[in-house]
Amino acid sequence: MTKLNETHDPALTSWVASANDGRTDFPIQNLPFAVFRRQGSQEPWRGGVAIGDQIVDMHAALGAAVFEGDALPAARAAAETTLNQLMGLGAVALSHLRRALSKALQTGSKNEAALKACLIPQSQAEYALPASIGDYTDFYTSIHHATNIGKQFRPDNPLLPNYKWVPIGYHGRSSSIGISGQSFKRPQGQIKPPDADTPQVKPSARVDIELEMGIFVGQGNALGESISIEQAESHIFGLVLFNDWSARDIQPWEYQPLGPFLAKNFASTVSPWIVTMEALAPFRASFAHPADDPQPLPYLSSAANSAAGGLDIQLEALIETPRMRNDKAEPARITLTNYRHAYWTAAQLVTHHTLNGCNLQPGDLLGTGTLSGPSLDQACALIELTSGGKNPVQLPNGESRTWLEDGDTVILRGWCEKPGTTRIGFGECVGTVLPST
Amino acid sequence: MTKLNETHDPALTSWVASANDGRTDFPIQNLPFAVFRRQGSQEPWRGGVAIGDQIVDMHAALGAAVFEGDALPAARAAAETTLNQLMGLGAVALSHLRRALSKALQTGSKNEAALKACLIPQSQAEYALPASIGDYTDFYTSIHHATNIGKQFRPDNPLLPNYKWVPIGYHGRSSSIGISGQSFKRPQGQIKPPDADTPQVKPSARVDIELEMGIFVGQGNALGESISIEQAESHIFGLVLFNDWSARDIQPWEYQPLGPFLAKNFASTVSPWIVTMEALAPFRASFAHPADDPQPLPYLSSAANSAAGGLDIQLEALIETPRMRNDKAEPARITLTNYRHAYWTAAQLVTHHTLNGCNLQPGDLLGTGTLSGPSLDQACALIELTSGGKNPVQLPNGESRTWLEDGDTVILRGWCEKPGTTRIGFGECVGTVLPST
Repeated sequence: MTKLNETHDPALTSWVASANDGRTDFPIQNLPFAVFRRQGSQEPWRGGVAIGDQIVDMHAALGAAVFEGDALPAARAAAETTLNQLMGLGAVALSHLRRALSKALQTGSKNEAALKACLIPQSQAEYALPASIGDYTDFYTSIHHATNIGKQFRPDNPLLPNYKWVPIGYHGRSSSIGISGQSFKRPQGQIKPPDADTPQVKPSARVDIELEMGIFVGQGNALGESISIEQAESHIFGLVLFNDWSARDIQPWEYQPLGPFLAKNFASTVSPWIVTMEALAPFRASFAHPADDPQPLPYLSSAANSAAGGLDIQLEALIETPRMRNDKAEPARITLTNYRHAYWTAAQLVTHHTLNGCNLQPGDLLGTGTLSGPSLDQACALIELTSGGKNPVQLPNGESRTWLEDGDTVILRGWCEKPGTTRIGFGECVGTVLPST
Repeated sequence: MTKLNETHDPALTSWVASANDGRTDFPIQNLPFAVFRRQGSQEPWRGGVAIGDQIVDMHAALGAAVFEGDALPAARAAAETTLNQLMGLGAVALSHLRRALSKALQTGSKNEAALKACLIPQSQAEYALPASIGDYTDFYTSIHHATNIGKQFRPDNPLLPNYKWVPIGYHGRSSSIGISGQSFKRPQGQIKPPDADTPQVKPSARVDIELEMGIFVGQGNALGESISIEQAESHIFGLVLFNDWSARDIQPWEYQPLGPFLAKNFASTVSPWIVTMEALAPFRASFAHPADDPQPLPYLSSAANSAAGGLDIQLEALIETPRMRNDKAEPARITLTNYRHAYWTAAQLVTHHTLNGCNLQPGDLLGTGTLSGPSLDQACALIELTSGGKNPVQLPNGESRTWLEDGDTVILRGWCEKPGTTRIGFGECVGTVLPST
């Protein structure tokens, strides 16, 4: 697990003033990566690093010879059109670049003049997927979500016997993963209400969100080789916010016996900025199964994973209805939870995924699954928040929502804060449901 | 659906003598595509076309200026290191190249001298995956397989109510798909026998095959757009043999509620030669659900799909044990079936997959699912052939197999033949199970 070092020092400030206001998601202690270009331009996509309200254009910075020595391989890779190469370099090379960025961006740096010319305001940028995602796997790491959903699909048997032993995961669709700002048509599908004799094809009336975190894989493993729990985090590049949109009326009819398919693969949205594991080092949380639950099998256990395998990341989802947009009202928060409630850690997901020798590759995306916390107001999908559609969510402007309506925008946010550290954040993951036709 | 034309004429012969022997998988009426190079060389991978026991090196043929006019765009794309670009050009461009290849390879062609210099014997070639596979989806199109498996997992409820309405599919893992010749370590996993209290991690003792066909997607669709049943086949590039290796003791413990995961994603093997939909045109079969079954919903129905949506492709699986290899004995056939037994056609899989707007991309792979026929000797997995491990398969040399043992090689073959046509085949899909450590 990454140790604290001088890049985490809360006393550090940047010559980019907006990084020092105590409210930004992107102080000098964060330094997340994205792929961007100027909005509406035909410029090549390239890697960038967020600092305050600015982006360090890594392609330009490379041209300005800001990086040297150990930091150079990662700096070169970070300037590419996707971050796959950077991800593949591994945690040590990435850490060298982080130290170099931290030095170059801190108050009084000799690189200030050269790097200032490489800044582009985030307000002028558009983003691409940060990596070419080879495979996307979604997990099911919140026992609260699994129990809440299980109650609706199997009232007599909500939590299956394997849940407390197996970090349950399944493969998802990578082609329909989009970057924040994605809008998608309401999907149509085969829908069979319980009281109907035959299914009908119609637009989903139950489009839902799933607030998750996305884990981008760094260095991969060869087919046939497993990744130990001790090594697992060194194979994680970083984390993003992730909305795994779901059609709850398509899902129950299609999902047996092989799992969700068209209920999920019409769109999934990631936030642009990948916060690295090293940036998250101050926000580790202890991890333990309840004492009367089965303890993880040896391949999923390590002292480090128990001591600090968790991550204290606050997460919220907000909804902006067309009426709110029209009234210029603030989006309304519908849930607030924390990643530390997960039943399996990120390291356990990597290790379990490779137990059979399955090969992970740089840029692969692992979803944590819906990160619902223990209480209902921490539930991370409408199917839970509304108790399966029975109790609509009341919004502050008098509207209510059972499921998403056309034109609704959902905004995910995430951040870490604790005394003695500098707050860091993930930016936003935004997506909008369009009418079916 | 592709019509018959002069390229299917059974009277056609090639100046490549081995294409005319009536036994080859690759007569001039076939002309499948692969990606290859000389065995053990460091040559660049490039596209090739099989003719008899030779390969037309498409990169060399392009240099020899054999192709012109309408055939040129596809010829250029077929010379690349993967066939994704060729697949993305669509069925019309591909058909132009087929006609040009047919003319250039037929007896008396003016291109004989130029093209002869571009031939490489298949015996000297090695193959790569023919495409960069973005997403891999596996279906479940044999009702016989679904029923046989269902009986073992849910004796009282073998075929779920959705089966006859929904072409059931789920996402698979693309990173572990390998080309024929692949060998893989016996996977380990969490295994919990029904009579045990807790799961254990150990090597799978129930490694199995699944004889499937793989469908390579040609032109894709934009996210949010569906592909109609009428258009579906024009989005299929061609078919390969596909072995979806499975660990039957990992599967039952992990697969609820989200589907198979580590039981499947340790390895899957495709045959190198992609037989195009146009080459398969003489071997179409009518398609109908039994009269007392639900008829496909309108989006899955068309006159053409009913008249000829099926494909008459004979399929067999053979096993070669280490003892057979040692004794130089012939591999033993363990099943013989036909793709026409499938409950859903290839076109229906494409249309269903995109019903919700999910975007397919050139080079995506769709597995048909295990293609078991109606009788037990047509079953395409050991779990069926052995009735769940109860009745070992007897091999002609006195050995038997319940599940695959270390060193076992499995060979899939497929071919089409009917009176008045020239037999065409798919070559072989070969894979070997290695010890766990």
